[in-house]
Amino acid sequence: MLKQDERLDYLLAEELRIIQSPSVFSFSLDAVLLARFASIPFKRGTIIDLCTGNGAIPLFLSARSESRIIGVELQERLADMATRSVTYNQLDQQIDIIRGDVKEAPSLLGYEKFDTVTCNPPYFPAHELSDRNISEYHAIARHELHLTLDEAVCAASQLLKQRGKAAFVHRADRLMDMLEAMRRNRLEPKRLRLVHPKAGKEANTLLIEGTKDGKAALKILPPLIVYNADNEYTEEVRELLYGKS
Amino acid sequence: MLKQDERLDYLLAEELRIIQSPSVFSFSLDAVLLARFASIPFKRGTIIDLCTGNGAIPLFLSARSESRIIGVELQERLADMATRSVTYNQLDQQIDIIRGDVKEAPSLLGYEKFDTVTCNPPYFPAHELSDRNISEYHAIARHELHLTLDEAVCAASQLLKQRGKAAFVHRADRLMDMLEAMRRNRLEPKRLRLVHPKAGKEANTLLIEGTKDGKAALKILPPLIVYNADNEYTEEVRELLYGKS
Repeated sequence: MLKQDERLDYLLAEELRIIQSPSVFSFSLDAVLLARFASIPFKRGTIIDLCTGNGAIPLFLSARSESRIIGVELQERLADMATRSVTYNQLDQQIDIIRGDVKEAPSLLGYEKFDTVTCNPPYFPAHELSDRNISEYHAIARHELHLTLDEAVCAASQLLKQRGKAAFVHRADRLMDMLEAMRRNRLEPKRLRLVHPKAGKEANTLLIEGTKDGKAALKILPPLIVYNADNEYTEEVRELLYGKS
Repeated sequence: MLKQDERLDYLLAEELRIIQSPSVFSFSLDAVLLARFASIPFKRGTIIDLCTGNGAIPLFLSARSESRIIGVELQERLADMATRSVTYNQLDQQIDIIRGDVKEAPSLLGYEKFDTVTCNPPYFPAHELSDRNISEYHAIARHELHLTLDEAVCAASQLLKQRGKAAFVHRADRLMDMLEAMRRNRLEPKRLRLVHPKAGKEANTLLIEGTKDGKAALKILPPLIVYNADNEYTEEVRELLYGKS
């Protein structure tokens, strides 16, 4: 079941396990935040998670929804980890992991057929890839080598039905790029939540959801603060990660 | 000195007084926030405050800077109140109040000559003017009857030198319009601060600053929370309003 340096980690609040590997891919807090932030159907329709990595977001979403979930991941090795995690959790009936290029997802899966898209895309411009010691897995997952932000937003929009919703997580300093990419691709920004590492610090992460061909009306939700003054997770983040205690 | 129902109010933290009138115009917390948020020169150059109303922002800025300040206000009555407040505070050497249309400010005052522009523009679309009992003074100051957001941003940009800075305050739900207007008018958004009435509530106000022909790099500052759980001003807002105690 496990290969090389892989581990079978707990998916925290959910009674789920996930295959991770320090040298290949581990999910981040951002994936948890996105899975909690996105508006998803409870039963009907299909959710697509683009750039699914080791499948953390589909697994999280399966605890919140009975809808079918498709995860799309470019990298064979990551898609394989995700597929084995789905099988381990006996979720093969609900979750499909597809190895493929996000840019080709609409032609592969169908245009304007889906209700919800989630996406935690590569965060860093390709030219910022300065650390030559980074593994190719991490380089592709983190840098816009095979997928730019605009391409990710474009694919999400093409997959969505009219009024369908796409939710993204990204670096806060890409807010302008994100908003422009969304409007350019007919995804009207509707809900924005900024994530600050600590109270009194600048935001480092953004969560945003848009509606395909929706009316202009952006709500800016209360900020999410990750750590308290003692460098421990705040109560809200602990609840997101571990559930209500 | 005072006309009709005018009062001579204190400008709180500063040792200044300002002429106000409930039926004509009183400055709002937003003006205070903008005057504190804007990056201004300490000595050199000239600051322009567009839509200056009764001159609250120039008066506030005069406590932070020795630079020359020009306030531009369309409404004769408000410009007159502002002028009398400037004189009362013996600031005629530093502050000029000009009655004029913001759209014509660049042709009046000069293109690309100024270092900093501040602007607290009318917040509400003209079509939202439903209350027919509102005074004409308030209607013009609050609604985009004579000045749209894009026109205000365009005038600010035309007034600014290369690398000059423009700071605006507006309703949070106009964030998309504001960002688009700024980019369309060569003002690259650099600093964004969202104002939430209370912790856990959506933002209702935004403060944003851009640099003319600046490089793309937006910082999202810590949120500003106005009221605490007891509906009193938070410590930060008390300091902005009344100074450190």
